[in-house]
Amino acid sequence: MAHRLLLTFNEYAEKSSKIENPLPVGYSQRSLVMTRLVDITELVLRDGHQSLLATRMALEDMVGACEDIDQAGYWSVECWGGATYDACIRFLNEDPWERLRTFRKLLPNSRLQMLLRGQNLLGYRHYEDSVVDRFVDKSAENGMDVFRVFDALNDLRNIQRALKAVRRTGKHAQGTICYTTSPLHTIERFVEMAAQLRDLGCDSICIKDMAALLRPQPAYDLVRGIKAKCGPDTRVHVHVHATTGVTLVSLMKAIEAGADVVDASISSLSLGSGHNPTEAVVEMLEGTGYVTQLDKQRLLKIKDHFAKIRPKYAEFESQFIGVETEIFDSQIPGGMISNMESQLKQQGAGDRLKEVLAEVPRVRQAAGYPPLVTPSSQIVGTQAVLNVLMGPYKTLTGEFSDLMLGYYGSTLGERNPEIVQAAATHAKKDAITGRPADLLKPEWNELRAQALALQGCNGSDEDVLTHAMFPQVAPKFFASRAEGPRNVSRKPAGPPPPSGGKSPVKEAVSYQVKVGGKTMQVLVEPAK
Amino acid sequence: MAHRLLLTFNEYAEKSSKIENPLPVGYSQRSLVMTRLVDITELVLRDGHQSLLATRMALEDMVGACEDIDQAGYWSVECWGGATYDACIRFLNEDPWERLRTFRKLLPNSRLQMLLRGQNLLGYRHYEDSVVDRFVDKSAENGMDVFRVFDALNDLRNIQRALKAVRRTGKHAQGTICYTTSPLHTIERFVEMAAQLRDLGCDSICIKDMAALLRPQPAYDLVRGIKAKCGPDTRVHVHVHATTGVTLVSLMKAIEAGADVVDASISSLSLGSGHNPTEAVVEMLEGTGYVTQLDKQRLLKIKDHFAKIRPKYAEFESQFIGVETEIFDSQIPGGMISNMESQLKQQGAGDRLKEVLAEVPRVRQAAGYPPLVTPSSQIVGTQAVLNVLMGPYKTLTGEFSDLMLGYYGSTLGERNPEIVQAAATHAKKDAITGRPADLLKPEWNELRAQALALQGCNGSDEDVLTHAMFPQVAPKFFASRAEGPRNVSRKPAGPPPPSGGKSPVKEAVSYQVKVGGKTMQVLVEPAK
Repeated sequence: MAHRLLLTFNEYAEKSSKIENPLPVGYSQRSLVMTRLVDITELVLRDGHQSLLATRMALEDMVGACEDIDQAGYWSVECWGGATYDACIRFLNEDPWERLRTFRKLLPNSRLQMLLRGQNLLGYRHYEDSVVDRFVDKSAENGMDVFRVFDALNDLRNIQRALKAVRRTGKHAQGTICYTTSPLHTIERFVEMAAQLRDLGCDSICIKDMAALLRPQPAYDLVRGIKAKCGPDTRVHVHVHATTGVTLVSLMKAIEAGADVVDASISSLSLGSGHNPTEAVVEMLEGTGYVTQLDKQRLLKIKDHFAKIRPKYAEFESQFIGVETEIFDSQIPGGMISNMESQLKQQGAGDRLKEVLAEVPRVRQAAGYPPLVTPSSQIVGTQAVLNVLMGPYKTLTGEFSDLMLGYYGSTLGERNPEIVQAAATHAKKDAITGRPADLLKPEWNELRAQALALQGCNGSDEDVLTHAMFPQVAPKFFASRAEGPRNVSRKPAGPPPPSGGKSPVKEAVSYQVKVGGKTMQVLVEPAK
Repeated sequence: MAHRLLLTFNEYAEKSSKIENPLPVGYSQRSLVMTRLVDITELVLRDGHQSLLATRMALEDMVGACEDIDQAGYWSVECWGGATYDACIRFLNEDPWERLRTFRKLLPNSRLQMLLRGQNLLGYRHYEDSVVDRFVDKSAENGMDVFRVFDALNDLRNIQRALKAVRRTGKHAQGTICYTTSPLHTIERFVEMAAQLRDLGCDSICIKDMAALLRPQPAYDLVRGIKAKCGPDTRVHVHVHATTGVTLVSLMKAIEAGADVVDASISSLSLGSGHNPTEAVVEMLEGTGYVTQLDKQRLLKIKDHFAKIRPKYAEFESQFIGVETEIFDSQIPGGMISNMESQLKQQGAGDRLKEVLAEVPRVRQAAGYPPLVTPSSQIVGTQAVLNVLMGPYKTLTGEFSDLMLGYYGSTLGERNPEIVQAAATHAKKDAITGRPADLLKPEWNELRAQALALQGCNGSDEDVLTHAMFPQVAPKFFASRAEGPRNVSRKPAGPPPPSGGKSPVKEAVSYQVKVGGKTMQVLVEPAK
């Protein structure tokens, strides 16, 4: 024994390697696992910069990465959605349809993917069915391949028409479950929803976890449940944000349970309120028997590209760059908290945030436990602020009344009947139980006429749709479109921008500055 | 069917919930899993701020969190090690022993844990055995409970004496495997090393992954292998850094394989080159059957405490705040790259980093594949720089010669015989194969005499040990100790510090600044 203790680990290993079968039984599980392909959807061109840089990235800052993205081996490239469309015309003077056509040209080998808010399309109200059809037709025609269709309330009647329209074009129709937690949101209910989506003819099912609430065990149970209920050939995609810090593990468990595709964003635009890093997904699977077909050299180039671009958009950085596990208890996504904070400050009640945070779950319960995602998060958050400032339900917003009366669709839980009654009185209309869009009259011709009357409208269906989605913003955009794209980033090098620029640094100066919500001491020195 | 399509998900769920046993078999694995306790070691008081804030945090900035840390339910609290000891006397004018005694007082219910570099103790050379014994005795006497003992080369002869000393004090002796990857570093070898550590009488075994190289599958295989080989009652602790972005998943797999304790750092001092967030470890286990006994309300208070402290140390922030999966291929930890970069710049060869990065794996192979961790990372990195600048092995450092000649211990791989010969010629000494510390003569009395001769030395064994560890720094520290601690942080509020301070901001100014290695546009405005 004494002799053995004097052996170094290395000498010992040298010796023991000569022993036959030195491994305990069951020791390497690797050889028992069959290889299975796991596909990846890259988010950086849509949700990545939407979540981290307030959707401000200009097309010209993406172009340089497209060849590598196209060749990297992704299952699909998400590149279009409501916020990117909105930001294009509101801030960037870019035609969103031109952006789509550019992606189509630059990503010839890739499936282009978009996020579609069901009957809301990319806007904030319900559209009549023929508008839904036209939007889907035009998107497909301009190059879209995969339509991820969701409804904020998980009311399938709100996504049915869009899914049907996608199927008619022959493109990929993906039905979406918005994941949330509540006493009513059980795995069983979500699995039933998946079965309904399958019955609607979806080509795949997406579990969409916008608030990073999907823990590893439910991720496993949910994917497993869907595969068991809908059949192993039902393709399951998993979309998670990283905010709570646990969801890369959730992706691992989802993959173990049979998930076919997981979403990720290249590391240089990942984490915080964004997503798990693409490279981390690839690396975590090494040796597990699950393999991706991504090209690591390409990923490195994509990473480097966006690492250079990101600092230009520093002023738009999300303030949620760390990990916020409180979200599990409050179920309030980070972005919603900052909205409510600024509402409170406007009312001179910045000190009452804690009361509002405690009120949100009560409002959510009263409204039948809607998932908190655009637009339900804003509607519930604003009502919680009003309840705290004015007393419970003394003042109702129009949107909250509509939510209570069923004009956004149905919720999983029962709504508080007293507040429904108050909403009916306030809004002077009755509660509905039907599909909200059934109340709408055909509106395409009117929308078309309105659009054509706008200066700069080119008369295309695409322009009509831009007007239909964003009637307040479209006129200014049409009028200024000819001036071309306006990149809102600032070059990291070069002279200070004219707006705030003054005296360049002549010697080292120390400042206290706030960047992305974090206060830091910064030493600024003359360039060398 | 048409009727069914018109049901909302909610109505459908309502209906289906009345069906008996609507769940597919095998659907909820939760009920099958037994509950098992997983313990957590909190790192924030040592490795957390060491990895993220260059070890600069003053004791006074930790005191406010101690009650919550003590009550949160951790298995142990890591709070002492080589770098914290060094920083105390070099930068903070704090007596490290006084820091330890303060922790002992403020954390009466906690196991205090330290990281010990085996025969190097907390210094950078081998010490003679009686110095090792005294150091361990004094640490135990001043309140240390758990000694995590490692050797950079995984040469067990270098940690044997320290482990024996710990066992004699009755404290917890933890033997450590430094995890690395190379063609020779197989799971089998590491498991054999664990068996050797068990035979040395260790109370537990730690897998230490300082470079975030431990992927999920090897984490599983390694823990599983150790449990199979050494018995299920062998306690396994897992320490990983977060730099590559995958290691929270590795912790999950390690736990599934039977790991007893995992290390984490509170979220507000986590991620990047630091560790996985404590709260994320707790949350990821929810519903899995694995439970921690941590108090989430306490964690929230600890988080808030360090969230307020961190900005004061902004100038010491690590530049590795994202995810760096390149480390898997290069096997070069982030901190090492920045070291080599600054060496190259000093030589006016800042453009040759790529050549150096390619040279590192060759040097590592020539040296027998040492893990890259202090001090081997510095030794290998510096030699790689010299090889690129002067030609391969034209110039050898004294430290590299010693490494090649066995004066740091043995490595797993064979060393290149030609370079060993060159090292012998250069260093004018022969290669050794024995335990390096066997060459040392008793040195306590001499160290004691040297220390007592220093102005301000209080004559205690603790002071002798401070001199023994850091002979260059101790004299200045002893001389200035009476002045009391010097907090190197800067208050986020208040006037600019005298060193770099000048003209306060009078109107908005835009600058290009570099913070933590990231170049950003920053708008600085007068305080409101």
